[in-house]
Amino acid sequence: MLLYTDSFKKELLLRWSKIQRKLKELDVEACLISTNVNSWYAVGQIIIGYVYLRQEGEPLVFVRRPSDITGNNVYPIRKIEQIPDIFADLQMELPQSILLEGDEISYAEWMRYKAVFNTERCINGTHALRQVRSIKTDYEVAELRESARLQSIAYKDIPLLYRPGMTDHEFTVEVERLFRLRGNLGLFRIFGSSMEAFMGSVLVGENAAATSPYDFALGGKGMHSSLPFGHSGVLLEKGKSIMVDINGNFNGYIADQTRTFSIGELSEEAYYAHKVSLEIQQVLAEAGKPGAVCEELYQKSLQIVKKHNLEDCYMGIEQQAKFVGHGVGLVINELPVLCDRNKELLETNMTIALEPKFIIKGVGAVGTENTYVVTDKGMEKLTFAPEDIIEL
Amino acid sequence: MLLYTDSFKKELLLRWSKIQRKLKELDVEACLISTNVNSWYAVGQIIIGYVYLRQEGEPLVFVRRPSDITGNNVYPIRKIEQIPDIFADLQMELPQSILLEGDEISYAEWMRYKAVFNTERCINGTHALRQVRSIKTDYEVAELRESARLQSIAYKDIPLLYRPGMTDHEFTVEVERLFRLRGNLGLFRIFGSSMEAFMGSVLVGENAAATSPYDFALGGKGMHSSLPFGHSGVLLEKGKSIMVDINGNFNGYIADQTRTFSIGELSEEAYYAHKVSLEIQQVLAEAGKPGAVCEELYQKSLQIVKKHNLEDCYMGIEQQAKFVGHGVGLVINELPVLCDRNKELLETNMTIALEPKFIIKGVGAVGTENTYVVTDKGMEKLTFAPEDIIEL
Repeated sequence: MLLYTDSFKKELLLRWSKIQRKLKELDVEACLISTNVNSWYAVGQIIIGYVYLRQEGEPLVFVRRPSDITGNNVYPIRKIEQIPDIFADLQMELPQSILLEGDEISYAEWMRYKAVFNTERCINGTHALRQVRSIKTDYEVAELRESARLQSIAYKDIPLLYRPGMTDHEFTVEVERLFRLRGNLGLFRIFGSSMEAFMGSVLVGENAAATSPYDFALGGKGMHSSLPFGHSGVLLEKGKSIMVDINGNFNGYIADQTRTFSIGELSEEAYYAHKVSLEIQQVLAEAGKPGAVCEELYQKSLQIVKKHNLEDCYMGIEQQAKFVGHGVGLVINELPVLCDRNKELLETNMTIALEPKFIIKGVGAVGTENTYVVTDKGMEKLTFAPEDIIEL
Repeated sequence: MLLYTDSFKKELLLRWSKIQRKLKELDVEACLISTNVNSWYAVGQIIIGYVYLRQEGEPLVFVRRPSDITGNNVYPIRKIEQIPDIFADLQMELPQSILLEGDEISYAEWMRYKAVFNTERCINGTHALRQVRSIKTDYEVAELRESARLQSIAYKDIPLLYRPGMTDHEFTVEVERLFRLRGNLGLFRIFGSSMEAFMGSVLVGENAAATSPYDFALGGKGMHSSLPFGHSGVLLEKGKSIMVDINGNFNGYIADQTRTFSIGELSEEAYYAHKVSLEIQQVLAEAGKPGAVCEELYQKSLQIVKKHNLEDCYMGIEQQAKFVGHGVGLVINELPVLCDRNKELLETNMTIALEPKFIIKGVGAVGTENTYVVTDKGMEKLTFAPEDIIEL
């Protein structure tokens, strides 16, 4: 298996140059990438091994598994301790400073890598690499657009899955099947060791307000204490909302989209809050040009919420999430986060999910979520399933 | 939400005493548990926070999320840096030595925790906690037995899902749906940051031999470069084997079971190798009493393989896995591993999956996998779907 083709190399050269700019900015000689997400980003393959990239030139790739990868600068190894010998053979010096993925690799891995490179100056580069990844190449935007397209088409067909008498569990399983049949890869990559989910959440009625340990916008009780998130086994009943927030990973790029459905009619308050969610997204999408400040976009959402007197049910009731959006891409929670005290500026080709959601007592969750790409004219919406509350 | 009920406390007391014995053995004052798997083990809830357990007494539980957990010794916090003040209020000293989950928490987390506890003696306790978890309580064995039962019943119904003309993708999705409808929780917890899978693998024909970066027994090409594992989109064709190895997580305890199906008849060699897989399991299950040495069990499997001249296709062809079994429980790959150079001894109530598998050229993968519990009389099998190759 070839590590990458010549035609894909142009894209990789762009990614390497983005990482290399960051290395120069941080005055670090090289980085060692070892996590699945970053190795797929850096060489277009999931390898168990290490991608070593200096400020100039192409990376060296040390591969433990799979055993049959070949290509320029590819070195099969059994363990990282072999790297210094390979460097010696190549008449290359070990770096004086190196960037490691310190928020992702374990303490034990860090200490091991540090000993191999025998340098005092190991820098935690997780945030820097996440910053690099937060601004997509045009190729990546096209990939995410395609994932969003496939997800949107699947969302449109969700109403076909409903049969009276279903539980939220049965409904969730049918949504998962629909998405999987349409090519969804299933795996839901999330940044942060405490975060986990299967394919997303379907929240019906009161369950939307259940507190969850996970740091998602809304929680849900889940089916079992070992995974307290999502649907909880209740019947889909008249007057309840059904919020579907299921994984949009069709090609490694995860689009994030939420739609609300209902059984019968909902209360007027529910439709009202739903419209406010759409209003927030429209205002933020218009304001979301390069240079917009993340915390200001969040504040803007709060102003609209206050104007409509919906503060008490915005992003939860008992436990309220304190953000309105987040980057998306190779993981569901990329940078930046649209929250208080985040002074990061939006840049062209950042891809952001906006998810203003409300919980209406007696009804459940309402609102939508869409994935956008930042352009000179504001945020362009990539997800396009119908946004009104659809009665099943 | 109460952290745990009185009736469950008896079980927790047992788990705490097992951890406390380990703390004494390692001469460490206390441990700080922060990963999801270990917090669920230690208090029966997934919390985002920290479980602090000393050599004696009950744990203190510091909870960031969810916001509504109450109970004895439960302290809501926003960040770990608040712990020393709470200790001061309780007139408790900070520990002189502490066990942290050094193979699981990130380097950045370790450094942060270390600064909070202000001690030089931070010990990497991941392996110790995995050893504790490797020997199940009777309660845990019963839970795994129930998960294995539900998985076995679901496996029995797999033949009902087949329709001529299906691809491995369509077939996989129907198996996933069946398992999910029967209460499978979906999430596939794996130890090791580089390991990932959705719900397991369905390997048809030649795809079983495709090399994968992941350290599972067999790989598969997968549907996309971002997840190179499992089914690859091929048709289910006459003369090919279909090896189904799908997640048995029905209650947080993951049973591990593999069964082989076929379209039409397979070659004689395939049936022969399949019987050898059953023979290996029978021999190992009989030998697998407390005190049996892990590496010797692996060697025993190799002897049987050699006797039948099947070395070249045992556990893969190009890339051969070098183990025959592994612990199962809260993650799919618990301790111990049955592999060379592992001198660990089996103990009563260890739960082990045995998975001798072969790849037959022109056919695909054959063999079965079962989950066992170690008893005085040998390993008792918990998984019980029919083991012959079933023609679809």
